[in-house]
Amino acid sequence: MNTCFRSSLRTNVRGLFFVRYLFLVEHLPCTAAGVYYSVVVTIIFESNIHMPAKKLDYNKLALTLHKKLKGKIEITTKGSLKTKTDWSTMYSPGVGAVSSHLNKKPSDAREYTMKRNMIAVVSDGSAILGLGNLGAIPALPVMEGKCAIFKEMAGVDAFPIVLDTQEPEEIIRTVKAIAPGFGGINLEDIAAPKCFEIEERLKKELDIPVMHDDQHGTAIVVLAGLINASKVVKKKLETMKVVVVGAGAAGRAVTLLLAKAGVQNIIVTDSKGAIYEGRPGLEGYKKELARTTNAEKVSGDVMQVIDGADVIVGVSGPGTIAQAHIEKMSHQPIVFALANPIPEIMPEDARRVGAYVIATGRSDFPNQVNNSLAFPGIFRGALDRGVRDITDDMKLAAAKKIASLVKKPTPENVIPPVMTPGLMKAVASAIK
Amino acid sequence: MNTCFRSSLRTNVRGLFFVRYLFLVEHLPCTAAGVYYSVVVTIIFESNIHMPAKKLDYNKLALTLHKKLKGKIEITTKGSLKTKTDWSTMYSPGVGAVSSHLNKKPSDAREYTMKRNMIAVVSDGSAILGLGNLGAIPALPVMEGKCAIFKEMAGVDAFPIVLDTQEPEEIIRTVKAIAPGFGGINLEDIAAPKCFEIEERLKKELDIPVMHDDQHGTAIVVLAGLINASKVVKKKLETMKVVVVGAGAAGRAVTLLLAKAGVQNIIVTDSKGAIYEGRPGLEGYKKELARTTNAEKVSGDVMQVIDGADVIVGVSGPGTIAQAHIEKMSHQPIVFALANPIPEIMPEDARRVGAYVIATGRSDFPNQVNNSLAFPGIFRGALDRGVRDITDDMKLAAAKKIASLVKKPTPENVIPPVMTPGLMKAVASAIK
Repeated sequence: MNTCFRSSLRTNVRGLFFVRYLFLVEHLPCTAAGVYYSVVVTIIFESNIHMPAKKLDYNKLALTLHKKLKGKIEITTKGSLKTKTDWSTMYSPGVGAVSSHLNKKPSDAREYTMKRNMIAVVSDGSAILGLGNLGAIPALPVMEGKCAIFKEMAGVDAFPIVLDTQEPEEIIRTVKAIAPGFGGINLEDIAAPKCFEIEERLKKELDIPVMHDDQHGTAIVVLAGLINASKVVKKKLETMKVVVVGAGAAGRAVTLLLAKAGVQNIIVTDSKGAIYEGRPGLEGYKKELARTTNAEKVSGDVMQVIDGADVIVGVSGPGTIAQAHIEKMSHQPIVFALANPIPEIMPEDARRVGAYVIATGRSDFPNQVNNSLAFPGIFRGALDRGVRDITDDMKLAAAKKIASLVKKPTPENVIPPVMTPGLMKAVASAIK
Repeated sequence: MNTCFRSSLRTNVRGLFFVRYLFLVEHLPCTAAGVYYSVVVTIIFESNIHMPAKKLDYNKLALTLHKKLKGKIEITTKGSLKTKTDWSTMYSPGVGAVSSHLNKKPSDAREYTMKRNMIAVVSDGSAILGLGNLGAIPALPVMEGKCAIFKEMAGVDAFPIVLDTQEPEEIIRTVKAIAPGFGGINLEDIAAPKCFEIEERLKKELDIPVMHDDQHGTAIVVLAGLINASKVVKKKLETMKVVVVGAGAAGRAVTLLLAKAGVQNIIVTDSKGAIYEGRPGLEGYKKELARTTNAEKVSGDVMQVIDGADVIVGVSGPGTIAQAHIEKMSHQPIVFALANPIPEIMPEDARRVGAYVIATGRSDFPNQVNNSLAFPGIFRGALDRGVRDITDDMKLAAAKKIASLVKKPTPENVIPPVMTPGLMKAVASAIK
């Protein structure tokens, strides 16, 4: 016990307490040492508030946890397999009657099979978190985690499928081939620009809802945050000038959803500066983006286009938003710096030059843009209502529902936390 | 309580008891009625043995159960997602450390992910139970049932994948594409002959165990049964003459495994009669079968080749084994009539002409050849030992283990029931 106290103290205490404690431990009986310990610990605990907090090492904790669990999800049987009658109804021969029925009426799969509540979380591992293209196996723990969130938050059964191919046509073909058993497809961590074609094709060619979460989950939560941020700064969402830094999967989706929500003045920038119609070498989806944004065809880098902007949304990487950018923005700047784990600009640096509402992708700062606010409820709603497509109107409605959960928006509270009661149901109710 | 007694009696009792009981129930206090009930029930129970049992309608029960469950399996989360630390270790940012680790050492997927204990149960629905080619959706309840059995019997997490393609190359490509997350592949209800190529190619091209259960599960249990049947009739397995009626997926696998077990005289018949080397028009896998069987190149239908056979194994369809066939067999004929649900010959008809040991695929007769005796333990062993291939030697060993669970084989007991204690562990121990 004393050893335990001592080692715990060694990691916490700074200064004299430690020496005094050790002295006493050596000279007092055990109980007295215990009493002294509790006094010391109380003092240490109080003083710790003003000491730099020792951060938990999530990497180490995660490795230990994963090694212990050996898989974060498992398969559980819903029926019983104890008696002969169980076996003959759960399996052969009785199950044959279910097969015959589904042969006559395949649409009843929603009534008689797992298709009712099962989605696939599909990734080729080409854009895993902030880690880049690591492929199938490294994607697996991330997808398992996502499936765990689906079940815990929304009761959605989700199964991870990690693909041994990164070729768009092969991905499309594979997802179509395995689709019959699923009620929906959540695409995940697939790199831009191929993710756009893969999603569009699957939406068209499958009769179940398909959503690439890195695009639309993010876009929905960003819009929810901006709806509340606009209230905080007392500006109209529609007339705000928004600069989106980064034109990848999230950048494109955020831009399109903001446009759909009525925001008229959006400028998207990539590594070559502002995207505008007619920019030399512009092609593919960026050409498309140019058509719906930057009506005045402004060119130049972020510094040149940020003038008077109300909102800057970073969906790129660390360091792409500078204090100088924020200084050129309009009154009460709104800064969403969403690169993860290191934001485009750190919140304290942004605040120092007047950023008024700040959001990041991190859970240790206020206003976390967390996809988990959106995706569980979206698929919950889609499965319950047998929705074929998750439309833009549904995404808009979901964003408004999320925003509405913050009763009185303040600069530090424009996005509700993921554990907000009623969140999942509110989002699900938007999918209809 | 009385209502409950009454309705249970209504379905069981025939004749006077019912009237007498009702009379008493109306005129006695509850406890007395209870005592009387137990006496009545004992008498009914005894008399029921001699009454034609009212068969349960498994089809109806299965439809009701499936509609109630809406999926026989679900996904369950193993870790907790309650606190911020949970979220940060189960998912981002901590999970990134697991991804990075697996990027450096992919083989550790067995230590850190679901791959350790997860297999796919894959079907294209081209040969569902005895129902034929109904495709993906009708295959789903069967595969779900199989996954339930995997979990209940062996703790193996199994997930059903039903395919929207029946083209062999597409099936191979799809299974390879989704394989990284799985520790094994159980192919199921895929028609012959394409099932042979699909299995062989996947075994060669994947680094996890692949097994087509309709072939090898059946073969293992048939061999187990024949090992014990040979003891019952006091003949040597190796020198018995075996006629296999049917040259489909199961017929081929049974034949090859019996040959592997040392049975020297096997004749396989298909709709055109005995298969022998040089038979006009013979090609593909049947040509291969001809090389390892029927050394004397006997031709003709079952009636012409059955003379003096010790064993007949039906893996075809109802009506292909006749009493006249059995009458031509050797002393104490062994008849395995495995077509399901209607055997090649009904046990009572076989027994009438002297069949001594009879096995079927049905659970309502003795000696059920039930694949569930084999597949759960086989994959349990393969996953636990990280086996890459399920080899013929392992299948042989598994058959011997199953056979050994019947301590004293008798004509009515050559195959152990599926609920035999120690079964799964015994089979798993053969896979090494």
